Amino acid sequence: MGDKRELTVELGERSYPIYIGEGILEDAGKLFVQHGISIKSPIMIVSDVAVAKHHLPLLQSVLEEAGYSIATAIVPSGEGSKSLSVFEDLVGQALKAGLDRKSTIVALGGGVVGDLAGYVAASYMRGIKFVQVPTTILAHDSSVGGKVAVNHPLAKNIIGAFHQPELVLYDLNTLQTLPPRDVSAGLSEVVKHGLIWDAEFVTWCDENAERLLALDPDALGYALYKGCSVKAAVVSRDERENDLRAILNLGHTIGHALEAVAGYGELLHGEAISIGMVGSARLAVRLGAPEDVYTVTKHVLRRVGLPTKLPAHLDTNAIMDAMMHDKKFQEGTMVFIVPVAIGQVEINKSVSSALVREIVEELKREE
Amino acid sequence: MGDKRELTVELGERSYPIYIGEGILEDAGKLFVQHGISIKSPIMIVSDVAVAKHHLPLLQSVLEEAGYSIATAIVPSGEGSKSLSVFEDLVGQALKAGLDRKSTIVALGGGVVGDLAGYVAASYMRGIKFVQVPTTILAHDSSVGGKVAVNHPLAKNIIGAFHQPELVLYDLNTLQTLPPRDVSAGLSEVVKHGLIWDAEFVTWCDENAERLLALDPDALGYALYKGCSVKAAVVSRDERENDLRAILNLGHTIGHALEAVAGYGELLHGEAISIGMVGSARLAVRLGAPEDVYTVTKHVLRRVGLPTKLPAHLDTNAIMDAMMHDKKFQEGTMVFIVPVAIGQVEINKSVSSALVREIVEELKREE
Repeated sequence: MGDKRELTVELGERSYPIYIGEGILEDAGKLFVQHGISIKSPIMIVSDVAVAKHHLPLLQSVLEEAGYSIATAIVPSGEGSKSLSVFEDLVGQALKAGLDRKSTIVALGGGVVGDLAGYVAASYMRGIKFVQVPTTILAHDSSVGGKVAVNHPLAKNIIGAFHQPELVLYDLNTLQTLPPRDVSAGLSEVVKHGLIWDAEFVTWCDENAERLLALDPDALGYALYKGCSVKAAVVSRDERENDLRAILNLGHTIGHALEAVAGYGELLHGEAISIGMVGSARLAVRLGAPEDVYTVTKHVLRRVGLPTKLPAHLDTNAIMDAMMHDKKFQEGTMVFIVPVAIGQVEINKSVSSALVREIVEELKREE
Repeated sequence: MGDKRELTVELGERSYPIYIGEGILEDAGKLFVQHGISIKSPIMIVSDVAVAKHHLPLLQSVLEEAGYSIATAIVPSGEGSKSLSVFEDLVGQALKAGLDRKSTIVALGGGVVGDLAGYVAASYMRGIKFVQVPTTILAHDSSVGGKVAVNHPLAKNIIGAFHQPELVLYDLNTLQTLPPRDVSAGLSEVVKHGLIWDAEFVTWCDENAERLLALDPDALGYALYKGCSVKAAVVSRDERENDLRAILNLGHTIGHALEAVAGYGELLHGEAISIGMVGSARLAVRLGAPEDVYTVTKHVLRRVGLPTKLPAHLDTNAIMDAMMHDKKFQEGTMVFIVPVAIGQVEINKSVSSALVREIVEELKREE
């Protein structure tokens, strides 16, 4: 059994702890009480069909044993549930279950469930408490920082809030059923946290790639601890994305465009971000960074099983158009997060679109 | 021409000013610039059909002359627009108009438009700037304090946020077209602010009732200034309604129940709150407050043209049921705001429902 790890996201009165380890869910009742989750008001656990089947019975019974009154709301698996209509339905279920201003909503699942349930918690009665129980590797990213949202037919994540959880329970046992492709895609954001902040951790990911892909609990626990720690450090310094927090978007400008053009599903989020990070590294070298920014970035992403080449059939014009609509372009300025070395990035607000176009073309010819 | 008045809602870094006076809208361009509303990013003015006809052309042209790029979104008049479907439509219009993270949403209208547009501003890209331009007397209440929301089919105001505006522009000229019944209903919350906080102001309302009903700008400007000041003082001490802010709900527990049972429309909000405040005053006397709490409350409300008697055809059981579902009942405790003197209230968390039932019956026999 691996170590249990704990870290705190420092946000003043909104600070909260993250617990990472095997069997954390069995301690959920004790941890809820310890962190002030009211036992008098009903709790609603939101999950999706796939996750609920595996993990809801344990979480529900542990909380009920601790004296909590539990309602459950199960949504279809997949991005389609991040809609206002599912949101409205969940608010109705919360009302029928009698949730009041001291109630708590628990998100049991990956990023979709976390974003959706978090936005319900942010909005219900103008904001009630929220607990994240992530069940994917990718969700280590969305469970830190309080960004919650649903999609609009015209744009992803455009309707949302900043709403910090009370605590995050990361049980490594829930990750054991992940398909290999989701493991690699989840590791994309883990590696990203190394690339923007911690060169030593990038080396560690390279050296421990096999253990990570085999879901070795010790390696996985350490990687999630490091990934969450970097994200927490950044978010603590800039909760509402005024400046620094933008560095977390390394690879995301190209990555989001690829997801939009490929149609959600062909490329997983982590895969699109992987290709985007290789693009950012190429851009960095063109702007004067050392060559190893590119070679190391590409190497470590391939080591954890991620694609680094842009699918050649995706139209370059369509990709460029999608980037122009990305919400990170403020007041017409084109912003890119660009590495200056492994473990260090800068925000470049004047990248020319002609250069970006060249990089997109190069990514199609990547080995 | 009456005086122009200014006050500040003190909320630390979320503090904002309220400007009250005749012709304030003509200064909108200058005031927007002065308060940091970005000229580079598009603005969207949200209004309703009735208000837009009278006041949108002036506001739009003043802002365009100041160099702002303006989009407009007009919703149907009435409570029906406070729905998630209208909300989703407004987000779509904001996207099509190119609103970015530095854009501002302006609410031009009464409480419905303020609540709806405010929730769009709170949610769009996880929160953008927001300016309130109230055009009703009642909206003096909702424009202070940052409570924004839409309705769910099962409950009013259940989906929302706390989102403070950057500034509030209260042009008394926009109030001149209000029908007399809306004038009185709006004065209900003005009087409420006296009853909970400022006995002298209650006397002033009594002495100046005719001027208020005649929409005399000097009297109206002073009354709105005082009403906003009390609300600001309360909200400054308790932004997120943890305790003190609850005193603003004087008359609302009974009032909301009357609105729900009568069906929205038979009783205006201010009228229902007026009856509710008379009920609270009766309750107060039964709990030991001096008799004048009741006589003065009833007198001043009648002076500004408000009903004080509960319509006899409304079913007492239905009213009691509606109160039990009010979201202000936390963890099963029945909470009432009860006057202890004119200008002073307390939060009583243990009012028996049998006593409330008696009060409801008495309100039906009110003179």
